[in-house]
Amino acid sequence: MAPSKTPKFEIKTPKGTRDWSGPDMVLREKIFKTITDVFKRHGGVTIDTPVFELKGKYGEDSKLIYDLADQGGELCSLRYDLTVPFARYLAMNKDVTQIKRYHIAKVYRRDQPAVKKGRMREFGVYDPMIPDAEIIRIINEVFEGLGWHGKYTIKLNSRKILDGLFQVCGVPDNLIRPISSAVDKLDKMPWADVRKEMVDEKGLAPEVADKIGTYVVLKGKRDLLEKLKQDEALAANPSMQQGFADMDLLFTYLEDFGADHTVSFDLSLARGLDYYTGVIYEVVTEGSAPAVSASGEAKEKQAKKKGGKPGDPEEDRSDDPTLGIGSVAAGGRYDNLVGMFSGKTQVPCVGISFGIDRIFSIIQATQKKKERRNEVEVFVMAFGGGKDFTGLLKERSQVCARLWDAGIKAEFLYKVKPKLQNQFKAAEANGVPFALILGEDELAQGKARFKEMGLPEDHPLKEGELISLDNLIEEVKTRLARKQELDSITQQAEGLKVVGGVKGEDVKAPAETAQSTE
Amino acid sequence: MAPSKTPKFEIKTPKGTRDWSGPDMVLREKIFKTITDVFKRHGGVTIDTPVFELKGKYGEDSKLIYDLADQGGELCSLRYDLTVPFARYLAMNKDVTQIKRYHIAKVYRRDQPAVKKGRMREFGVYDPMIPDAEIIRIINEVFEGLGWHGKYTIKLNSRKILDGLFQVCGVPDNLIRPISSAVDKLDKMPWADVRKEMVDEKGLAPEVADKIGTYVVLKGKRDLLEKLKQDEALAANPSMQQGFADMDLLFTYLEDFGADHTVSFDLSLARGLDYYTGVIYEVVTEGSAPAVSASGEAKEKQAKKKGGKPGDPEEDRSDDPTLGIGSVAAGGRYDNLVGMFSGKTQVPCVGISFGIDRIFSIIQATQKKKERRNEVEVFVMAFGGGKDFTGLLKERSQVCARLWDAGIKAEFLYKVKPKLQNQFKAAEANGVPFALILGEDELAQGKARFKEMGLPEDHPLKEGELISLDNLIEEVKTRLARKQELDSITQQAEGLKVVGGVKGEDVKAPAETAQSTE
Repeated sequence: MAPSKTPKFEIKTPKGTRDWSGPDMVLREKIFKTITDVFKRHGGVTIDTPVFELKGKYGEDSKLIYDLADQGGELCSLRYDLTVPFARYLAMNKDVTQIKRYHIAKVYRRDQPAVKKGRMREFGVYDPMIPDAEIIRIINEVFEGLGWHGKYTIKLNSRKILDGLFQVCGVPDNLIRPISSAVDKLDKMPWADVRKEMVDEKGLAPEVADKIGTYVVLKGKRDLLEKLKQDEALAANPSMQQGFADMDLLFTYLEDFGADHTVSFDLSLARGLDYYTGVIYEVVTEGSAPAVSASGEAKEKQAKKKGGKPGDPEEDRSDDPTLGIGSVAAGGRYDNLVGMFSGKTQVPCVGISFGIDRIFSIIQATQKKKERRNEVEVFVMAFGGGKDFTGLLKERSQVCARLWDAGIKAEFLYKVKPKLQNQFKAAEANGVPFALILGEDELAQGKARFKEMGLPEDHPLKEGELISLDNLIEEVKTRLARKQELDSITQQAEGLKVVGGVKGEDVKAPAETAQSTE
Repeated sequence: MAPSKTPKFEIKTPKGTRDWSGPDMVLREKIFKTITDVFKRHGGVTIDTPVFELKGKYGEDSKLIYDLADQGGELCSLRYDLTVPFARYLAMNKDVTQIKRYHIAKVYRRDQPAVKKGRMREFGVYDPMIPDAEIIRIINEVFEGLGWHGKYTIKLNSRKILDGLFQVCGVPDNLIRPISSAVDKLDKMPWADVRKEMVDEKGLAPEVADKIGTYVVLKGKRDLLEKLKQDEALAANPSMQQGFADMDLLFTYLEDFGADHTVSFDLSLARGLDYYTGVIYEVVTEGSAPAVSASGEAKEKQAKKKGGKPGDPEEDRSDDPTLGIGSVAAGGRYDNLVGMFSGKTQVPCVGISFGIDRIFSIIQATQKKKERRNEVEVFVMAFGGGKDFTGLLKERSQVCARLWDAGIKAEFLYKVKPKLQNQFKAAEANGVPFALILGEDELAQGKARFKEMGLPEDHPLKEGELISLDNLIEEVKTRLARKQELDSITQQAEGLKVVGGVKGEDVKAPAETAQSTE
């Protein structure tokens, strides 16, 4: 921009987008780090693809795609998901035959621009259900890492079981997907409404609907699987048999991984999209239930959805489809999708997508203490006043340089002769935990005052301690480590307190919650 | 995308863009981490802004801006730099009066899409030159952190000194900026060519050009400053006097920060853009000199640049302008630029921009060992064979779960009965440092074999050690820590070796190098 021209400058971000800064940004980075650490612990590698792809990958006419303007040259669109770029990447890198990739990036949709997703996906050579179980374990580690212990449930089901169920109940083949997609709405509509949709809109025989109704209320763990196996009609269905075998293996592996305690085998979980071929899952949490009745926002969304045919590009929400209303993570196995894009015969995939924005909102709404803006550990100050006060800028600079050399995060006020009060104010504004106060008299003895900020009036160390500048780094590091240890103990104690206060029945699946608001 | 349709799928990334994966991605992440750690150590905070901004901020007609298509609704463009978004952010957040912000993100330019920048910028209340000196210190920490000790030079100058110099030499006021921009080309053209441009194209009197020529060859440290001060004509110029005062302070502060050893006060450094108001700097390194003669690519770029008037949006490269050819970081003080955008009267700023892509290329070209793809520390294996071999999947899963619980990065092969050979192959492919090998016999004794990968044949621990599974975590953590310590000592030794092998004269400013290729 020419400095000589003043541009028209509309002071807002584009519709649907926002800036991230301050404590929000810090919290978001912490969430990313938690998720990334888990992915790395399981051998995940990350890839980065361009924010735009050649146009056409997402269908020419989709109303939800952001296109770049035709400025001569290639026609491009902003990425709508992280699947198509990954499929394109695989097609360009035929030597990649096995990968656990994760990708944390924004995707762009004209109805909801810039949704931040954290995805993990595995594919390659494997024996059945082992990677699937590892994904469930990863989900556990992420939410435990976020401190949600006891506050989330992983709803689990299998497309093979659902398909078998519908066949046994007597759903005609051509209605299996539409009926499955109706069942998927049970997390936001009562059964009566779902049944009505099945019968009135989709033309299902009422007695078939009622039979489905007796199954989709069922949930449990391995006990439910055993119960279903006793059902002779179900046990005779080939798709069901495959589903049983899968779930048997899955439960075994989850037990071995110590990851079975948070799952709920839930026959009402269907997931909206066509391409799942095996296990499916969705994570719900306290704060994730929609705060609307079935006649409110949720229903509006239903209405919108009905407009599009299943399988429309507008309906497609990527590999792992839209997180259902209320869920904070979702995914499943889809063995045919990527191969279709990349031209490889089959690229078996199982994946999970975390809804970062929703996780962020839930944590933000419940956290008591705002995140600090920066991470400075020591604020270096000058003590003194009067007309002889030099400000000790040289000494502050040198001390800071020593701290920086040692990797300690440090700051001082950019003033030659700063007032003590202003230095404390600056340190407090950013929640800096320690002040290192330089004074002429102490410096003459080779010492400085090291003071923890915010101690209560009667604390024995309220006035700080004189430390030797010869041992500056050691003295500071010891105290930083001690505080970190104390803080971590306090946090753990707080964590336990919160968990202790949460009752089991507070962890509800959205379906239940939505019904109870009726 | 509807799974039932096969889209046209062109298997390439858009022109000028690329994917990042594998060792490249790992290296890039390491560079980000180094830079981010330094920024945080100095109290920096990060912000994230949308990838597109409302259209118009970058000038309506710029050929370098990526516009989004007009799909109804707001007109938007991809961000071209990180300055305009920051100015917009400041204008929207009037309560932010002081911030050290950093922003690591891609920017989009139609001539060179997706340039990754790492920027740090400070503004707010300060006494002269203190933040400027801290930025220089930050530059030092970043390149030391990247292991470039002794391999980079921070060229330093001041716009006030340059302006004073041109005035004293007799450059008419209206030619000061054009002449300054000609001087800026000294890093890629010999003086004779620059002089020709000044005289033939810009109409400068030959004797004035020659006078300039006697100054712009000068470089040094504080000694050069002292030498200039002795020059009576220079010392009488008011802009020069301000520049002297600034540089005096800056050298003092750099000494206090221990950051003066890498700077070269260089009168040939001009920086192309208009808006600098004080100190300017540019970092050059061995690998950063352009591998073209002045008649090659560099000249082509000149020609292109000449097409645009100085101050054209096309010329503008953001707050910190384009990194000059050959530089790996650049910046300076610009006290008027942001205020002009945001409508605040004045927003004094000093900043630095690191050219991540160039830094990446240089490191990649010189590094001997490829980065590992993932970070797995322990590969858990099953030992056995024959028809009684169970594969020990349960045991591998349980052991992995214990390692994951302890935060240790671990993996195993997704096979029920894996061959030992295939497990080793998988571990080696990713450079996993340790194998934990489970066997029936050892398990019966509550033990397993822990083996460092890649040890030489005659190493006493070549066959690994039997460790107790009761103390699994402790045993593994001790060995991981020991290896990490050894690796870090080896790396330091290698670092020293490399540094020792570099001669002082190998660290050349691009100006010299470009001339020497003539």
